Amino acid sequence: MAESTTPAAAIDAPPVRAEDFEVAARAILPKGIYDYFAGGAEDEAALAGNRAAFARWRFRYRVLTGASDPDLSLELLGQRFAMPVQLAPAATQKMAHPDGELAAAKAATAAGVVYCLSTLSTTSMEAVASAAGVRWFQLYVFKDRGITTELVDRAAAAGYQAIALTVDTPILGRRERDLRNAFGMPAGFQYENLVGPLARAGPADLGQSALAQYFSFQLDHALTFKDLEWLAGHTRLPVLVKGVVRADDARRSVSAGARGVIVSNHGGRQLDYSIATLDALPAVVDEVGGDVPVLVDGGIRRGTDVLKALALGARSVMIGRPYLWALAVGGGDGVRGLLEILREEIAVSMSLLGVRRLDELTPDLLAGP
Amino acid sequence: MAESTTPAAAIDAPPVRAEDFEVAARAILPKGIYDYFAGGAEDEAALAGNRAAFARWRFRYRVLTGASDPDLSLELLGQRFAMPVQLAPAATQKMAHPDGELAAAKAATAAGVVYCLSTLSTTSMEAVASAAGVRWFQLYVFKDRGITTELVDRAAAAGYQAIALTVDTPILGRRERDLRNAFGMPAGFQYENLVGPLARAGPADLGQSALAQYFSFQLDHALTFKDLEWLAGHTRLPVLVKGVVRADDARRSVSAGARGVIVSNHGGRQLDYSIATLDALPAVVDEVGGDVPVLVDGGIRRGTDVLKALALGARSVMIGRPYLWALAVGGGDGVRGLLEILREEIAVSMSLLGVRRLDELTPDLLAGP
Amino acid sequence: MAESTTPAAAIDAPPVRAEDFEVAARAILPKGIYDYFAGGAEDEAALAGNRAAFARWRFRYRVLTGASDPDLSLELLGQRFAMPVQLAPAATQKMAHPDGELAAAKAATAAGVVYCLSTLSTTSMEAVASAAGVRWFQLYVFKDRGITTELVDRAAAAGYQAIALTVDTPILGRRERDLRNAFGMPAGFQYENLVGPLARAGPADLGQSALAQYFSFQLDHALTFKDLEWLAGHTRLPVLVKGVVRADDARRSVSAGARGVIVSNHGGRQLDYSIATLDALPAVVDEVGGDVPVLVDGGIRRGTDVLKALALGARSVMIGRPYLWALAVGGGDGVRGLLEILREEIAVSMSLLGVRRLDELTPDLLAGP
Amino acid sequence: MAESTTPAAAIDAPPVRAEDFEVAARAILPKGIYDYFAGGAEDEAALAGNRAAFARWRFRYRVLTGASDPDLSLELLGQRFAMPVQLAPAATQKMAHPDGELAAAKAATAAGVVYCLSTLSTTSMEAVASAAGVRWFQLYVFKDRGITTELVDRAAAAGYQAIALTVDTPILGRRERDLRNAFGMPAGFQYENLVGPLARAGPADLGQSALAQYFSFQLDHALTFKDLEWLAGHTRLPVLVKGVVRADDARRSVSAGARGVIVSNHGGRQLDYSIATLDALPAVVDEVGGDVPVLVDGGIRRGTDVLKALALGARSVMIGRPYLWALAVGGGDGVRGLLEILREEIAVSMSLLGVRRLDELTPDLLAGP
Repeated sequence: MAESTTPAAAIDAPPVRAEDFEVAARAILPKGIYDYFAGGAEDEAALAGNRAAFARWRFRYRVLTGASDPDLSLELLGQRFAMPVQLAPAATQKMAHPDGELAAAKAATAAGVVYCLSTLSTTSMEAVASAAGVRWFQLYVFKDRGITTELVDRAAAAGYQAIALTVDTPILGRRERDLRNAFGMPAGFQYENLVGPLARAGPADLGQSALAQYFSFQLDHALTFKDLEWLAGHTRLPVLVKGVVRADDARRSVSAGARGVIVSNHGGRQLDYSIATLDALPAVVDEVGGDVPVLVDGGIRRGTDVLKALALGARSVMIGRPYLWALAVGGGDGVRGLLEILREEIAVSMSLLGVRRLDELTPDLLAGP
Repeated sequence: MAESTTPAAAIDAPPVRAEDFEVAARAILPKGIYDYFAGGAEDEAALAGNRAAFARWRFRYRVLTGASDPDLSLELLGQRFAMPVQLAPAATQKMAHPDGELAAAKAATAAGVVYCLSTLSTTSMEAVASAAGVRWFQLYVFKDRGITTELVDRAAAAGYQAIALTVDTPILGRRERDLRNAFGMPAGFQYENLVGPLARAGPADLGQSALAQYFSFQLDHALTFKDLEWLAGHTRLPVLVKGVVRADDARRSVSAGARGVIVSNHGGRQLDYSIATLDALPAVVDEVGGDVPVLVDGGIRRGTDVLKALALGARSVMIGRPYLWALAVGGGDGVRGLLEILREEIAVSMSLLGVRRLDELTPDLLAGP
Repeated sequence: MAESTTPAAAIDAPPVRAEDFEVAARAILPKGIYDYFAGGAEDEAALAGNRAAFARWRFRYRVLTGASDPDLSLELLGQRFAMPVQLAPAATQKMAHPDGELAAAKAATAAGVVYCLSTLSTTSMEAVASAAGVRWFQLYVFKDRGITTELVDRAAAAGYQAIALTVDTPILGRRERDLRNAFGMPAGFQYENLVGPLARAGPADLGQSALAQYFSFQLDHALTFKDLEWLAGHTRLPVLVKGVVRADDARRSVSAGARGVIVSNHGGRQLDYSIATLDALPAVVDEVGGDVPVLVDGGIRRGTDVLKALALGARSVMIGRPYLWALAVGGGDGVRGLLEILREEIAVSMSLLGVRRLDELTPDLLAGP
Repeated sequence: MAESTTPAAAIDAPPVRAEDFEVAARAILPKGIYDYFAGGAEDEAALAGNRAAFARWRFRYRVLTGASDPDLSLELLGQRFAMPVQLAPAATQKMAHPDGELAAAKAATAAGVVYCLSTLSTTSMEAVASAAGVRWFQLYVFKDRGITTELVDRAAAAGYQAIALTVDTPILGRRERDLRNAFGMPAGFQYENLVGPLARAGPADLGQSALAQYFSFQLDHALTFKDLEWLAGHTRLPVLVKGVVRADDARRSVSAGARGVIVSNHGGRQLDYSIATLDALPAVVDEVGGDVPVLVDGGIRRGTDVLKALALGARSVMIGRPYLWALAVGGGDGVRGLLEILREEIAVSMSLLGVRRLDELTPDLLAGP
């Protein structure tokens, strides 16, 4: 991706769309950090493919339906949310802004949406819990199941309401920007949730490099549906499976106890040339949408993207990079601003589509690729 | 859209196609005004999509048919027109040229086509009536039905022959060019048709800003087919419904009293990623084309575009931006020049297609996408 | 099309493909003349479409067939030709090079292919006849049938072996390059075949401008299949119909006496957005290919293009612009060089396809779009 | 292809993907040599098409399969290889690097893959044999069958384990880069395998130019399946047929004694607009995949490309240009580095696909074009 040539004026102008935050963030973040957040695996074809999938769908909107004052709210796992846009887990948010996960979580809470905290956060889950409303915890399963259960139990104790189990990361994808930048977590940041386990299990030197190595070492490369079953049985929290792109895997996940499915390819950061998540969504919805909520992430930048995903059967979407850019640009205020833009875009587009409630969004409103 | 880099020479040359007027207009209009007319909603994907749809169709022309001296005339709502290109409603034409709606209406009349005046004109409907031949009045329905009926009754009294009811604008789309330009109607312009109602209903200060706010406030966000039925019953003028892209909505419109359907997505200015109007046309024609005339607008720049739309079942097309650019460049002479170019392009292409009359234009003449 | 930025060195290098001649010709021809030859109608979409159609087909070549020393010859209307590439009619070739039609005809004869002379040549048909071998005469039908029969009878008397009747030109297409350049036939050139008729019929002033106006005036805008029948009955020469893109028109042409069909859209110079000729070819071949030879022109630049057309059922192709560029660059030697390049490309590609004779070229060798 | 504008820094950086080697190689190789290796026939559409075919397929990966520590090994013609990437035959490798074929063969051996030596190598097959492990010999059949059998018998004597018979080269394709560069084998290089035969058969002057001419002259332009049958009967080595893109040709090859089929279009260097090899693969696999191993080359640059080819039924792939660039950049170390990158990419992607062994790669893992 070319270096920014955007004039300062454009960066200083108030953002009117989600992508404006990225332009501004690129101008202020160190290149290594910008690339870490922005990049995908290898050719970044999965990354680009997620985005491209949305443009292939067009709206066959309705007129004269009398729809006005659209209701963006939804119910998900027994709770009510203000709009169908949740904050996806993303690692090391203090690299984006000193206020990090805390600011993002507060903004999510203010907007009435889920904040899903990453295992690899730079703020501890307990600190985030004190600030956030509805919060989910994203989980990597570790070889040492004791660490795994400790994380899950801490999350439950801290009032997290769901576990989002990442299943698309048996190992890390090849992110060539990071290889070219020789990027590692800069000094001063650490995986706060892992400090305790590492202190007990690891060597004396608790530098961030040791933590990153420890994480890679501890990541379980060979998870199975049995592990999902074990996890679902271990915790009273509902477990959502994140990273599924196939209907058969979605069905097996539900059979193993998953209470929801997040169609995701990790933002194009894991297997390159993965099917676009929007392309993968309909088959998953057909298979398990009647049983559990199906969410989707990847490439969502617009209210119209959200509405397309919902018309294809998603209960809600999650966004990742957009809120990292907003965080980088304006801390918690940035994230609040982003969510307000998305809320406004969704509301306007619902009115123009002629729908009043999210459950009126059906495939009939779309003209397909 | 990039700033113009067209050399002055190119701008000074006589236009040979509709798009030449845009190049010239961009060079002379203030950026805010140019962007207001040129822009679409959000990503401008609906705007671009309208245009792109035409290029996907190719002609399977006929030879040795003996067709010559093609007859471009048509009958529409009981009147005869010189060619199947009508002037679509467009707001605030004095922003394009001081002569505004009056000049455009005279040019339409001279060319034998409909001039459809916008509710939001900068010339009063009575003033336009005195200069125009066949004229239609575009209507927004207001919350205050008294204002609505007053507008319709004034139109009937002033000799307008049809009402084009806009149904794709329950609220205004997000036009980001205007947001970035912080564009508002410049001083010196006002919605002339609304001065009277506002004077009676509104505050003392009748500045243009008050008018714009008044319009937004008064726009009925929740119109239904019952409102259409009411309107069709209220006036003796035929009502066309403008902004439909679905066959079922077209059928409901006709059932509610519409005497014609205009397939339109408001030039891509309302719901972004709306289906291209040419893509939406055939299903609407299939559903109601046997009962009422179907018109289409959006992206028409060439005589060949007009003929493709007619081959797919449209009775006529409407053009918007092209005549605004022509108006900006040359006032009424500009619009006359534009219409003459389109007439010539249609005539030449009809001869080359081997058709003599518009009703010989059938899908068989097209190779589809 | 952008002005040439090709360095002089590239222009001076010996051409290795047909398109090299265009680069060189653009560098030496006056812009008005270059544009006249290069341009197409309006958006030049038919022009580009002809070329693009070829790239959509790929070869499923055969191996180990033992094919070597391919035989490029073919029989057409009772005569044998050295290769399936004929020279299409093209007007005013002295504008490309002082040696004009005479040089091109000699080069065609040397290469063993047809030279088809245009009615609008800048060399008289009798002068060309004295230099050419197998020659066809392209005919426009004039309102004054006496002129028409005079042209046909002169052609027969001068030993032309076929008439190619152009049917896609009831009137001239809108070629905007010419409109922008205000291009007219430069002083010193005239339609040599029309000097006699004009002298008898027209005004005293025999300037080239008068001739051009006379041609436009005399062009019959309303030809029918009856006129084709009349022409086929009038002359003992076989009549091919040039400009057909539909199967039904091809069938009617054969029924009216045509002895061959040339699938053509006049090189994209007449109706813009005409179907690509390669796309139109298969249906015409299906309909009449068993009865008469079907030829095709439009966009052919490579030996592989020729072989694709033949695999889809064409008996031979015709080329237009490529030989005008070769003529401009090198006179008769240029055209000979071009034909040698094409012959070599065809021969190499036949070997690599595993075919020995042209009649082994079948659709099975292609993977379709 | 534009001249390199890559900054030196990028070239000096350690390569992270196969294509990095090409950027670096272009910067150091003489243009004529770079173009000789890089170029394809005519428009280079077959060359580009091979690459483009891969991007049309996307992965539907599996999760929670428990796959880890993927096994990249495979069995082919009775031998075990470390990964499904073999080195395709490529001529004159000393033009890339002074260590030439010897270095490439050693690197292949170190990586546990086949090195397939070209007939046109700049190192003799005996010299390569002394350094290589599993080695195949690529064969052109010569008009003088005595030379042919001598080459085959020498290969067998030198321990080559298979013959890859090239069948897509009855004559050489038109490679226009070479024509424009007037490229010939530079002084100091010769076809080492042909020196002996030429000394016996040819003129006194054994310069490299005489060798090149001798090769062209001796190449058999008219091979048939009978010749394949003869060859398969002559040698105890298994014969693979290289250059097949059709199912029927694959079947005839197997019937004539081929023990394997390599789907190839000679890297786009022979017939331009050949079908992409990945597009040709499935039909060949359907036809003969149950009987013999099917390999494929052309456009493979990534581990994901390898896995797509295997999912579509290939037993293994071959790479050509990538290892020539690696050889140019770093000699044998370069090739080793390239193979390590590919091995790593394949291993990571297998884990992310959820597969443990190559035979688990099935079409079900792909979403098609």
